[in-house]
Amino acid sequence: MKKVAVVLSGCGVFDGAEIYESTLTLLNLDRLDVPYQCMAPNIPQMHVINHLTGQVAEGETRNVLVEAARVARGEIIDLAQAKAADYSAVIFPGGFGAAKNLCDFAVKGPDCEVNPEVERLISEALAAKIPLGFVCIAPAIMGKVAQKAGLETTLTLGTGADWAEKMQAMGTHHLSCPVREVAIDETHRIISTPAYMEAGRISEAADGIEKLVKTLVGWLR
Amino acid sequence: MKKVAVVLSGCGVFDGAEIYESTLTLLNLDRLDVPYQCMAPNIPQMHVINHLTGQVAEGETRNVLVEAARVARGEIIDLAQAKAADYSAVIFPGGFGAAKNLCDFAVKGPDCEVNPEVERLISEALAAKIPLGFVCIAPAIMGKVAQKAGLETTLTLGTGADWAEKMQAMGTHHLSCPVREVAIDETHRIISTPAYMEAGRISEAADGIEKLVKTLVGWLR
Repeated sequence: MKKVAVVLSGCGVFDGAEIYESTLTLLNLDRLDVPYQCMAPNIPQMHVINHLTGQVAEGETRNVLVEAARVARGEIIDLAQAKAADYSAVIFPGGFGAAKNLCDFAVKGPDCEVNPEVERLISEALAAKIPLGFVCIAPAIMGKVAQKAGLETTLTLGTGADWAEKMQAMGTHHLSCPVREVAIDETHRIISTPAYMEAGRISEAADGIEKLVKTLVGWLR
Repeated sequence: MKKVAVVLSGCGVFDGAEIYESTLTLLNLDRLDVPYQCMAPNIPQMHVINHLTGQVAEGETRNVLVEAARVARGEIIDLAQAKAADYSAVIFPGGFGAAKNLCDFAVKGPDCEVNPEVERLISEALAAKIPLGFVCIAPAIMGKVAQKAGLETTLTLGTGADWAEKMQAMGTHHLSCPVREVAIDETHRIISTPAYMEAGRISEAADGIEKLVKTLVGWLR
């Protein structure tokens, strides 16, 4: 089987990839004997957040690919080098990095723009019917790419009405979905789970991510 | 039940806490309904490693507590504020941070020194018979504290003869232990597992850590 691409957005919930979501995505793939390849865009982070205080670390800059390499134990490639056709599926863990570095949904909402390399990879996957998985806030990226492509996709950002509205504003069919469950778009083979959009504890996020990975891998076998 | 203390050493395998080991420690505690509290020393890291290149990031400094807060999603306290008596057990995930920031075993081997607050917490736990868990390279910290206290503890750093020699040089009874297993010191209620001292894939580390957490929590119930 080809590797599954896992697209990271840094390292740390407030300015990068959510660490537990990323780790559990990789664990579930590995437990199913599915090889994976981590990747991230080689761009500066929107900002650096001191995770102890929650405040912006003024004057500090970090690179998304370099920080994502922490999550990947150094085994990572530049997203610009990746072609969807080389992978069996593509999964985006969440964290604010997905909505700050891979797109700017965190600040612009439905008017966001998606990083060009991220949009390219997703577009290639859609065209080749390669399954896509989105965790936590990452479905916002898919919502925007689908809007630009004129597709109506089915996605979830959890159970919050405000999040549903933001997704609907991009033309997404938003499913309200509890934390341990997944929202499935059979037509486009896209699956999403709320994880830390809803999770109060790590085991809740873990259950949803396990279901996402198992469902997605089921499509491949 | 009192919380389990989880002592982190930064965020990233090469200069901080190993991210998967830390995440899986927390996941396994949570799946057993055991509350936990992350903590880390408020000190500078020994150095910062660019995890993409593997090279030292010259001129860059990061704080262990601030970076560990990334692993803890901000829910972390200064180790100096923690008393062992307030916790049911103490677990140290691995990563080079355990051997660079919590002690300096990575550079000095058996002649290492342990961070004073780390040594204090472990000594308090030993005196109160509070169980201790050590993952990956972290048993080296325990080896040095035990040597200074005149205790012969049983620990593992995996199956490598060179690692066994280093532990024996500190007076530790070193058990050769495969990655999915644990080494148990019933006398002192200390448990260790090799994780990324041996692991070739995340699921191997996950199995050993699950066994470590389940055994340790079994001692508490």
